[in-house]
Amino acid sequence: MKPPRITGVTITPVAVLDPPLLNASGVHQPYQLRAVIELHTDAGITGLGEAYGDDPTLANLRAAAPVLEGLSVFDLNGLTARTATALGAAAPGSPTDLIGAASREKTIAQTVGALEVAFYDAQGKATGLRVCDVLGGAVREAVPYSAYLFYRWARHPQGATGPDYPDDDFGEALDPAGIVAQAKRLVDVYGFGSLKLKGGVFAPEEEAEAIAALHEAFPGRPLRLDPNANWSVETSLRVTPRLEGLLEYLEDPTGGNPGMARVAAGTSLPLATNMCVTSFAEIPEAVRLGSVSIVLSDHHYWGGMRASQRLAGLCATFGWGLSMHSNTHLGISLAAMTHLAAALPELTYACDTHSVWQREDVVRPGALVWSEGSLAVPAGPGLGVELDREALARLHQQYLDCGIRSRDDVSAMRLADPSWERRKPRF
Amino acid sequence: MKPPRITGVTITPVAVLDPPLLNASGVHQPYQLRAVIELHTDAGITGLGEAYGDDPTLANLRAAAPVLEGLSVFDLNGLTARTATALGAAAPGSPTDLIGAASREKTIAQTVGALEVAFYDAQGKATGLRVCDVLGGAVREAVPYSAYLFYRWARHPQGATGPDYPDDDFGEALDPAGIVAQAKRLVDVYGFGSLKLKGGVFAPEEEAEAIAALHEAFPGRPLRLDPNANWSVETSLRVTPRLEGLLEYLEDPTGGNPGMARVAAGTSLPLATNMCVTSFAEIPEAVRLGSVSIVLSDHHYWGGMRASQRLAGLCATFGWGLSMHSNTHLGISLAAMTHLAAALPELTYACDTHSVWQREDVVRPGALVWSEGSLAVPAGPGLGVELDREALARLHQQYLDCGIRSRDDVSAMRLADPSWERRKPRF
Ligand SMILES: [Mg+2]
Ligand SMILES: [Mg+2]
Repeated sequence: MKPPRITGVTITPVAVLDPPLLNASGVHQPYQLRAVIELHTDAGITGLGEAYGDDPTLANLRAAAPVLEGLSVFDLNGLTARTATALGAAAPGSPTDLIGAASREKTIAQTVGALEVAFYDAQGKATGLRVCDVLGGAVREAVPYSAYLFYRWARHPQGATGPDYPDDDFGEALDPAGIVAQAKRLVDVYGFGSLKLKGGVFAPEEEAEAIAALHEAFPGRPLRLDPNANWSVETSLRVTPRLEGLLEYLEDPTGGNPGMARVAAGTSLPLATNMCVTSFAEIPEAVRLGSVSIVLSDHHYWGGMRASQRLAGLCATFGWGLSMHSNTHLGISLAAMTHLAAALPELTYACDTHSVWQREDVVRPGALVWSEGSLAVPAGPGLGVELDREALARLHQQYLDCGIRSRDDVSAMRLADPSWERRKPRF
Repeated sequence: MKPPRITGVTITPVAVLDPPLLNASGVHQPYQLRAVIELHTDAGITGLGEAYGDDPTLANLRAAAPVLEGLSVFDLNGLTARTATALGAAAPGSPTDLIGAASREKTIAQTVGALEVAFYDAQGKATGLRVCDVLGGAVREAVPYSAYLFYRWARHPQGATGPDYPDDDFGEALDPAGIVAQAKRLVDVYGFGSLKLKGGVFAPEEEAEAIAALHEAFPGRPLRLDPNANWSVETSLRVTPRLEGLLEYLEDPTGGNPGMARVAAGTSLPLATNMCVTSFAEIPEAVRLGSVSIVLSDHHYWGGMRASQRLAGLCATFGWGLSMHSNTHLGISLAAMTHLAAALPELTYACDTHSVWQREDVVRPGALVWSEGSLAVPAGPGLGVELDREALARLHQQYLDCGIRSRDDVSAMRLADPSWERRKPRF
């Protein structure tokens, strides 16, 4: 085989409908942005990737795209080196403050991470292998995900959408009973074995009550709570006694490794993070302070699937558990997450995914099959998903029409509550 | 492409002539043992690997070989899992105490590491790629190695060999002048840019004199000294002032992370190791104590090339430098080391190799080309080396005839000095 060489990269921003999910920053906007990456090669093979779709991410992808021409799709070191050079002058930026602090290193990692998926998809297509097999082989043929529960409204605030905006039929969930009802529906449809509640929204004691209600409704099922660093250390230590014995892990109760270390020292709960350990540069401090015992990996910002495998090795070396983080994403990323998780012997927890909240996708249906809370590894070759060109065109048009160009959960919340401020910790 | 599946594994022990090189344990035996691995597949492709050739290593390889049947050559996770199961009852053992403490983890890693090279060679042959390209792409097309200088005798002690044993023509090197002469010859022939002296043989002050003599003879050329943990902490701290300003790094002056940390605290010299950090399990202690600042990786005992990339990530994360260790090896391992080093952006130092001391090989000449102290990355596909069947048969016969079945530098030294004892530190 002659290794396919890159002849061009197409980057298509899309917007997809998103329900009003509440979190520490505010509320999801009515549309979430994603970018679809098509890596064209001289072998006629196209590799697919998916990234955040905000303006700074698009600018970074567009800065990197031209320098990839001529590169072999197997040359991941070349991808990293050329991207770092291309982004030399790029300012650090983050598509959302829900994934920790921005840095130049992370900006490069996010750009590489998105493009690398397309490299791997092309490698798989060139060799006839699934991406999980290119990554070292599947240790599981189905990847368990957790139900991602959200406090939410039935519809977006007035002024956020036009009158024709199609709300979903989940209705609101603003108290323990609402969360339990939401969990029951998701478990019924998908069969999830673990349940995660996005917290940091209401008073910590209310959220602890919701966890207790889930524990009662789903006895023995692993539960997680993620306040997204919206609690102070003192608040965290006030609430953890109510959560001990109920949670599989508590995710980012408070911000930063020093604060997390103080919480860790005061509770028997394992602390997980996708906020204080989100790049390799943050690991030494976390090791020194003992701030976390589980890391949620995410190929989107750790620098790709290979970097995620590297992170897995670090976790195993330091006795940390490994789970997987999700922001809103579409089917290309879901396929990538599933192939990666399938090839990670170190994965110790069910993965997160926002998938259940998305009603629109850029991939053709049929490749991603749920069963008992797990997703079967797509058959491949490569990622095993195909672009639905009609959907891509429609969701790109939706992107053009919706006017949203970056994620802003704070402004979205202000439509409902004009006094709302970006503040952390809020509790 | 249908992924090639393993139909069988051939393991052939060989013995190659080795000169009487002195080290902390004693002296090299007249023959060094290696094992040649041929991984047969249903695609007609054969992957090559190379391992230590001592009896325990052969037993481990032979225990793992049958369980690999049917496995895809891309399934590195399957290789690891099946090998770990097959070696479930294997006792920890090490082919030499010069590569740190033995453990069950390391025994598995050594077995996987040897077999994995053959998997990668087969992957490269199946895809038409070089191993370095399978590993993520070459960041360098020539890999720099350092000259590996040894105190040595002209010939093996009486009783070690028969009368027909062919000594090489290097002659003895037992003092600074001898070491400088040896270095000049190696630099003349190979063009090495860095020089490493295997120490731990004579009084530390004598070895420091040899380093000073090298510094004078090769001004500006990076120098290293490796006493193989044969100095006490006190001795190390007595000698380091003479070495500061002369050495690029000091390798394993003393044994164990606590001792190394005490030396590190008392010298400005960077400390390197292939003895106190030789497995992932040893990394947390090294991080906590600050015992080392450079790790010498070695795919033979870290668990393969992928594990070595993982180690490289750990080194980069903790600000450690990365170099590469060598035991006596043949052309298959030299090709593997070169492909791996070519694909490691994190490599910060020239690699070690014993190659200059080997006059016999199992690979056909021509694939491994030296220029200015560097080895060009073999062209591939795969490792890019081919078995010389005549040489393999001859060196296997030499194995059968020589009677050596494990490495034993202590007994080899006793032939010259009956009072010699295994003792560490000796100084
Ligand atoms: Mg989180
Ligand atoms: Mg050494």
